[in-house]
Amino acid sequence: MNETHDPKLTSWIESANDASTDFPLQNLPYGVFRQHGSNEGPRVGVAIGDKILDIAGCEAEGLFAGAASTAALACLGESLNELMALGSDHWSALRKRLHEILRSDAPEGFQQRAGRNMVAQAEVEMLMPAHIGDYTDFYASIYHAMNVGSMFRPDNPLLPNYKYVPIGYHGRASSIVASGAPVKRPCGQTRDDANQPPSFGPTKRLDYEAEVGFFIGPGNLLGSPLSVEEAARNIFGFCLVNDWSARDVQTWEYQPLGPFLAKNFMTTISPWVVTGEALAPYRVAAFARNEGDPSPLDYLNSEHDQRGGGLDLNIEVWLASRKMRDADVPAVRLSLGNFRDMYWTTAQMVAHHASNGCNLRPGDLLASGTVSGNTKDARGSMLELTWRGTEPLQLPSGETRKFLEDGDEVTMRGYCEREGLRRIGLGECRGAVV
Amino acid sequence: MNETHDPKLTSWIESANDASTDFPLQNLPYGVFRQHGSNEGPRVGVAIGDKILDIAGCEAEGLFAGAASTAALACLGESLNELMALGSDHWSALRKRLHEILRSDAPEGFQQRAGRNMVAQAEVEMLMPAHIGDYTDFYASIYHAMNVGSMFRPDNPLLPNYKYVPIGYHGRASSIVASGAPVKRPCGQTRDDANQPPSFGPTKRLDYEAEVGFFIGPGNLLGSPLSVEEAARNIFGFCLVNDWSARDVQTWEYQPLGPFLAKNFMTTISPWVVTGEALAPYRVAAFARNEGDPSPLDYLNSEHDQRGGGLDLNIEVWLASRKMRDADVPAVRLSLGNFRDMYWTTAQMVAHHASNGCNLRPGDLLASGTVSGNTKDARGSMLELTWRGTEPLQLPSGETRKFLEDGDEVTMRGYCEREGLRRIGLGECRGAVV
Repeated sequence: MNETHDPKLTSWIESANDASTDFPLQNLPYGVFRQHGSNEGPRVGVAIGDKILDIAGCEAEGLFAGAASTAALACLGESLNELMALGSDHWSALRKRLHEILRSDAPEGFQQRAGRNMVAQAEVEMLMPAHIGDYTDFYASIYHAMNVGSMFRPDNPLLPNYKYVPIGYHGRASSIVASGAPVKRPCGQTRDDANQPPSFGPTKRLDYEAEVGFFIGPGNLLGSPLSVEEAARNIFGFCLVNDWSARDVQTWEYQPLGPFLAKNFMTTISPWVVTGEALAPYRVAAFARNEGDPSPLDYLNSEHDQRGGGLDLNIEVWLASRKMRDADVPAVRLSLGNFRDMYWTTAQMVAHHASNGCNLRPGDLLASGTVSGNTKDARGSMLELTWRGTEPLQLPSGETRKFLEDGDEVTMRGYCEREGLRRIGLGECRGAVV
Repeated sequence: MNETHDPKLTSWIESANDASTDFPLQNLPYGVFRQHGSNEGPRVGVAIGDKILDIAGCEAEGLFAGAASTAALACLGESLNELMALGSDHWSALRKRLHEILRSDAPEGFQQRAGRNMVAQAEVEMLMPAHIGDYTDFYASIYHAMNVGSMFRPDNPLLPNYKYVPIGYHGRASSIVASGAPVKRPCGQTRDDANQPPSFGPTKRLDYEAEVGFFIGPGNLLGSPLSVEEAARNIFGFCLVNDWSARDVQTWEYQPLGPFLAKNFMTTISPWVVTGEALAPYRVAAFARNEGDPSPLDYLNSEHDQRGGGLDLNIEVWLASRKMRDADVPAVRLSLGNFRDMYWTTAQMVAHHASNGCNLRPGDLLASGTVSGNTKDARGSMLELTWRGTEPLQLPSGETRKFLEDGDEVTMRGYCEREGLRRIGLGECRGAVV
């Protein structure tokens, strides 16, 4: 019996058995939603096919017990923070129970009680999944670092610290928004000509960056670092991140303290948080370092993480200009990258972040930095695809693009798929420039 | 009649009339405290002399009405965030009423009711004054930028953007602690020799940075910038900030995205938030730019701000080693700087931060960057005082210091004073290395 027929591996929600869905029984991602036209506050739900199971409703129906019930009770608020804080034993217990409730051979009573708490995804607005206390953005793709470095510092593209330090910096938590929010072209200081003073106005080089985000679970106390293994257990789940960037502002402002206004005007995330457990079948070895590259220093080096800390996760970026949408021309795929190409694993990034005792809190968001691969079609930003505007993209509408124009809609999709396994999707991360 | 005798300018709390107090009737800073040994939660209070007035208690006594009552009701929680969110009209109303309650000629009934809600500062623990959503650190002292720049980039000390851009970067909100918390020497990656790989271990170059912090009031919506005038009205109040820094980690990690683990292991703030209104008498003209320096770009340029956006605020740094404390040798003053030496005003920093539409929220903390002046004794970090360790400091105990040693206690003090005006103090910001 293969996955598509085994009643333990399929759901009584028919749409969850569709081979193309992001949200089969094997996924069960968490999110926060509000029904269109509802006066009620946000609720925590689990995606299954094209539906959402309302956790609080199921709890009220008495569908949970023990640790699963504790975890479900942590979902009665308006965010996933409390669930994230509980840790992996509770996450597993709730996931196991949700699987029992949603699988094809679930008892009739389960199906009835769960069915009363099922909402169509088409009828809800998806909100921010968590209150993000602190947001940190890394720079974990060596291909991205090489591409960008060679544009900003042609004489010195990859700095000597790159292969030792998982480079990261603090981003802005307040301006992180859920998929779908419009992107207002920001103003900023730019200088076109090194012999002239800078000027202030709308950015002319608006860009996206396709990244993977990961949410912190229980975290650590101030002054208490995490080992790589502890770090791995502290990752609750994953989402997509669009780190919108104003490249002309970035060029002028970023030295010596790093990007600031070039990035903090908005960051968009996909609203479903896909758990580490759901993605476990797609774990792969960490990035294979080149002959001659240094090994990670001890505090970042774990045999287990090196063996399985990578993640075979495809990241697509699609673009539809306003002209294309008006003419019903389908979006065009700009790139297909893979998260396994990151030089650093997510556990290494978390362990590095906590290595000085910095406290990570439940719901903190870390992002990978742009996911770019070794080939041109795997470049995760327009800066790289057009090589800073010098090689414009051709769109199916006959338009060209060096950077994003008003009306452009960028959609990112993330998914794992492999022969013999169910596809696990991260859903989409979308935003249009206004 | 001068200030020390006028009953409208003195308080019935005698210690508030002492010329040396940081907290006269003219100050009235807000903070969050918990009584030693109390089972109650944190409470919002106002410092007056060596006492604290409990706002919630006074509200229960019916001491407030109208806008002052609205503001007092915003102080019933465990932080100042709600008060900060109300805006300057409410801040003024509450301040005016507190002044009426606390001045020498206050009606007997006021004094009785307020007296029942008065706590000795010696009997409380001061907590974080606000929940800080996002923390941003600037780099507003041109003397600090020149000093550090000449050490890190001898060929290029002051970058071309400095006189146009109020340079800032995002810091870590989770690891901000209130004065008195012990400072654990952090571990990190450092590289002593450019021909050798880096190693991981306790920092050998632990430093402090004396800064001024300012809390955001109502803030702005995502996508809605603030003018310099709006920015000025959006600053609720001020505190001291010690931006502890691991210089060896910073040197190795900070390129290309800025300081990260070198800073985010801990930041200490003074617990009393001194309002903009209290400091108004000490407003001075903004920094006088040199002949030939560019004017601020329009979005940062306000005549009103140029005329009075500076602040004549002294910042002292004191050091006491463990050996000194054990031998009852008083702390030694390492530096005396002044906040009027900042190249950018606080309103310019806030306006710049919001200029791309980045949303600032009530309770967000911005810090100035190290307050260093033009003279050696006005340098606000040990890095600058010892010129990166090349000119060690002599302590009264006979010890020398290139950077901080275990057991060293750093205390910062901030105060405004001028002939004919009451001294207004920020209190102290203290931490000892363990």
